Amino acid sequence: MVEPVKTFDGWYSLHDLRSIDWVAWKLATEAERKDALADFNQLLEKWDKVEENKAGSHAFYKIIGQKADFLFMFLRPTVEELSDLETELNKSKMGDFLIPAHSYFSVVEISRYRPEKPGEDIENSDYIQGRLYPTLPKWDYISFYPMDRRREGNDNWYTLEKDIRAKLLYEHSLTGRKYAGKIQQVITGSIGFDAWEWGVTLFAHDVLELKNIVYEMRFDEVSSRYGEFGDFFIGTIIAKDDVSEFFKV
Amino acid sequence: MVEPVKTFDGWYSLHDLRSIDWVAWKLATEAERKDALADFNQLLEKWDKVEENKAGSHAFYKIIGQKADFLFMFLRPTVEELSDLETELNKSKMGDFLIPAHSYFSVVEISRYRPEKPGEDIENSDYIQGRLYPTLPKWDYISFYPMDRRREGNDNWYTLEKDIRAKLLYEHSLTGRKYAGKIQQVITGSIGFDAWEWGVTLFAHDVLELKNIVYEMRFDEVSSRYGEFGDFFIGTIIAKDDVSEFFKV
Amino acid sequence: MVEPVKTFDGWYSLHDLRSIDWVAWKLATEAERKDALADFNQLLEKWDKVEENKAGSHAFYKIIGQKADFLFMFLRPTVEELSDLETELNKSKMGDFLIPAHSYFSVVEISRYRPEKPGEDIENSDYIQGRLYPTLPKWDYISFYPMDRRREGNDNWYTLEKDIRAKLLYEHSLTGRKYAGKIQQVITGSIGFDAWEWGVTLFAHDVLELKNIVYEMRFDEVSSRYGEFGDFFIGTIIAKDDVSEFFKV
Amino acid sequence: MVEPVKTFDGWYSLHDLRSIDWVAWKLATEAERKDALADFNQLLEKWDKVEENKAGSHAFYKIIGQKADFLFMFLRPTVEELSDLETELNKSKMGDFLIPAHSYFSVVEISRYRPEKPGEDIENSDYIQGRLYPTLPKWDYISFYPMDRRREGNDNWYTLEKDIRAKLLYEHSLTGRKYAGKIQQVITGSIGFDAWEWGVTLFAHDVLELKNIVYEMRFDEVSSRYGEFGDFFIGTIIAKDDVSEFFKV
Amino acid sequence: MVEPVKTFDGWYSLHDLRSIDWVAWKLATEAERKDALADFNQLLEKWDKVEENKAGSHAFYKIIGQKADFLFMFLRPTVEELSDLETELNKSKMGDFLIPAHSYFSVVEISRYRPEKPGEDIENSDYIQGRLYPTLPKWDYISFYPMDRRREGNDNWYTLEKDIRAKLLYEHSLTGRKYAGKIQQVITGSIGFDAWEWGVTLFAHDVLELKNIVYEMRFDEVSSRYGEFGDFFIGTIIAKDDVSEFFKV
Repeated sequence: MVEPVKTFDGWYSLHDLRSIDWVAWKLATEAERKDALADFNQLLEKWDKVEENKAGSHAFYKIIGQKADFLFMFLRPTVEELSDLETELNKSKMGDFLIPAHSYFSVVEISRYRPEKPGEDIENSDYIQGRLYPTLPKWDYISFYPMDRRREGNDNWYTLEKDIRAKLLYEHSLTGRKYAGKIQQVITGSIGFDAWEWGVTLFAHDVLELKNIVYEMRFDEVSSRYGEFGDFFIGTIIAKDDVSEFFKV
Repeated sequence: MVEPVKTFDGWYSLHDLRSIDWVAWKLATEAERKDALADFNQLLEKWDKVEENKAGSHAFYKIIGQKADFLFMFLRPTVEELSDLETELNKSKMGDFLIPAHSYFSVVEISRYRPEKPGEDIENSDYIQGRLYPTLPKWDYISFYPMDRRREGNDNWYTLEKDIRAKLLYEHSLTGRKYAGKIQQVITGSIGFDAWEWGVTLFAHDVLELKNIVYEMRFDEVSSRYGEFGDFFIGTIIAKDDVSEFFKV
Repeated sequence: MVEPVKTFDGWYSLHDLRSIDWVAWKLATEAERKDALADFNQLLEKWDKVEENKAGSHAFYKIIGQKADFLFMFLRPTVEELSDLETELNKSKMGDFLIPAHSYFSVVEISRYRPEKPGEDIENSDYIQGRLYPTLPKWDYISFYPMDRRREGNDNWYTLEKDIRAKLLYEHSLTGRKYAGKIQQVITGSIGFDAWEWGVTLFAHDVLELKNIVYEMRFDEVSSRYGEFGDFFIGTIIAKDDVSEFFKV
Repeated sequence: MVEPVKTFDGWYSLHDLRSIDWVAWKLATEAERKDALADFNQLLEKWDKVEENKAGSHAFYKIIGQKADFLFMFLRPTVEELSDLETELNKSKMGDFLIPAHSYFSVVEISRYRPEKPGEDIENSDYIQGRLYPTLPKWDYISFYPMDRRREGNDNWYTLEKDIRAKLLYEHSLTGRKYAGKIQQVITGSIGFDAWEWGVTLFAHDVLELKNIVYEMRFDEVSSRYGEFGDFFIGTIIAKDDVSEFFKV
Repeated sequence: MVEPVKTFDGWYSLHDLRSIDWVAWKLATEAERKDALADFNQLLEKWDKVEENKAGSHAFYKIIGQKADFLFMFLRPTVEELSDLETELNKSKMGDFLIPAHSYFSVVEISRYRPEKPGEDIENSDYIQGRLYPTLPKWDYISFYPMDRRREGNDNWYTLEKDIRAKLLYEHSLTGRKYAGKIQQVITGSIGFDAWEWGVTLFAHDVLELKNIVYEMRFDEVSSRYGEFGDFFIGTIIAKDDVSEFFKV
């Protein structure tokens, strides 16, 4: 039957990418820059606290190329917290030197293709809970990209029976498993939330694995016939100690 | 027969999205900000009066992500009132700090696929009148997106017989009914008015239901084969009492 | 046979849409605004004179939404006059407060699918002359949009025989006739002139008729299979007496 | 056989379109404007000299609509000369008032579908030399647009045998010949050079012929099934004596 | 079988294109320009050192047309080095006069369609090592463009068996070989890294060969049916001695 599957949904997610207005930053006085940095560091510490308290998580990466200068990925229990967080950044002293570059709103999502056995409570298992409310890894590299399932002539995902979709996704997951330990993946759903249907955020120790996995997966039928991909944002991790260096002029 | 259906048309609608120029806002003096806020609050009160008098309605939400900072959806009996309203906002003191982000012009619309029985006056029924001239709900979340019916090779909505379209839309409405009480939906027509054919505005108590309904509906044939969707704007409600907090820097 | 038809061509046409730089306008001194308005009113009077002398025509509408603040549609006997007119507006004092929003260059066009009978001189008939060199109606509403004929797989207008195209267009014209008195339509050709093949400018007494006609026509085969539509610009008429009100801050 | 044809290649070509920053131009002092104009006129004279010496050619037109204010088409023996010319314009005093609007890099190109007869030296014939190294006509009107050959499903130009392509192009050329004396055409190749495969620059005495030829040609199979067209830029000639008038404020 | 091939991956690559803010540059004082140039020359020397030490390589070209003023292509062993390099340029005094125009992140890549013979170590052969860690040629002309393999209806590269892909690519390579000595090509992979799947950077002694090779290759089935191409950036080399001339105003 052509029917949707249920999803488990976890924390809400905001990918927030910014470019630095380097000219304005250099024109600012040393004192203004110091204030802005202090302000920014306070935000970082506040967010770290949230993460320590398991009340959310975030990732902070430097983006390569001109699409943006850095990326934040924020996870929070409510949309309101994400929205406040964004506004707080805009209002902060550092906000004056940041140009919006891209954003993405979604929610951590797991599709439930496998039926529950009697007595089983998949959602509340430690495994699923850990995936729905994850502490984002502090691995060296990140790749973020949005994607759709194609609806085009004979390649229309949404006209496929549930069993066929489940089979294609299962084969796809086998490719994913080869990258266990090399790639950590967070899938966030955004149908009805943003311009694409899903966001994929990959973390890696070796940046090359980001290319390897996306390349290998493209030959899976679920991607080759049914995948549409948006732009890719690649970054290297920024440790809290590197922040002043990053902004130093 | 391949023929159009009649529509009932209600209030005209303008979705008006704006970004705040935070840098300019912070550079303004305290007095200028106070003036702009007072001006803005006066507009809000004026629009509330219109709503109390059942002479229109409006929704005011904070948009998450960088697409905009807030969204207004205005309903009014005439285009002129909507256009004046927009100009009044542009000319207001607050207008100096608002950057146009997106707009959409349409009219509340109900398609008449069901034929009228003898003696029946559907349009003037309380139910239809309430839907054509609605007071927009003050629910916590909003999702606004535009859509087209596809005209592509074998998936061409406008070459389908009226009966087939009616059947597909009826099936679609069954999906919608599952969300009664969870989602309130306002459909506005914009063929000949704006870049897409319809605007969909959904209100929800639980933001997750916005994803659920759009996801579930995507498997309905009317969406999977015949739907084209634009960008999605998601927001959280701004109560009048929250306005000064929202603009506080 | 797959062959082009001849066209009758009338006045050249420029759709010129502008946004007002409200911040600059408000920052200007009262005297600067007065000068700019006087300058602008002089242009309006000059263009009115041209219209009185049947040496051209123009329409002036306020656009709803953020795509533009107003639209001019100018008709003139030569491209040079249109181009000079545009430059004069740019150089005028008001020009400093106007941001280009969109423009479209075309020529009033009538396709000659019907063969001429012996002795008949269609082009010089009063009816055709009136349509080629029209005084644009001062009706309350305008809708302007560009369109193409599709060239895509099996839906390729330019591979259809002339007779078939004539038949499809004839059926389409029957839909149009239902709107006699409600809608006045000016078709302008722009193949080789601008980014789309035709511009459609509709005038209406009731804005809803703009939606009705475009919606109904979309089911005509010529539109459903062979029409591609650009963005739609909707406006309300600006009488000369309303100009100072429109610019008043 | 599906094989490329050889081309004859002549002068390199740069289409350089600019908008005038009218606000800055009006804010400049009379002296600054005079200097900028003198500088600009010197460039024009220098380029005229090049043309007189048959070491290149150029066209200078005023563009109608908001896409640009004017267009230069420069022909030169080397890319370096074109690139230097562009930089010289940027560095000139007038350059401060010009906003880049569009550019196109290509090379005058003639496709060699007809085989050479024994002893024949087509490339060095006066006819071909004249077309490869042309002095651009100073006709009243210009139309510039880029185009591709389509590669889409069954309409894929690059999978057609050479003979079939030759036949389709020959038929197309018959349409072109009807416009001898009315339209002068310069085809420039840009595969590997710019975003489209060819640039088409048409010159006309009567602007209507620009529409007529493009419209008529659209029914040739080579266009209806295999042509993709970009935006069209239409202009009226600027004589050297008109330059000061054009910039006068 | 429909399966991916392994790749050899070499240095990471960043194409960094910038436009010069000529107005700001001319407004700067002679001293500021001198400082900025000195700063810039120091960077160039530093990068030359890296190249001398075989720890990376770079190309520096002037782009023709308005897409950018110059292009850097940087090769480095790590992403971090590329990212630091980009930030260093942004923070440099010259950075204040450079407007980001385009960027591309990828990695030098060789596809391994040919199986390894027993005992053979292809990756560590001098030939492959030279291609993975190349010193970029200082040839007169560059062409950079991104590309995808098509996934569209019957023309879907990622559903082709490996053997068929290998055959198509082999035929393609025969076309490439004809340009030995005329064109030097660097292929960089960017699946999972950037918006396109591969970047192609061609170097030539004669700019015409850039058009010839791309044109000839377009008839290879691998391009005609399976190639999607982005924008093309063409440049002429800038020798270190030409830098002050280039920036001289």
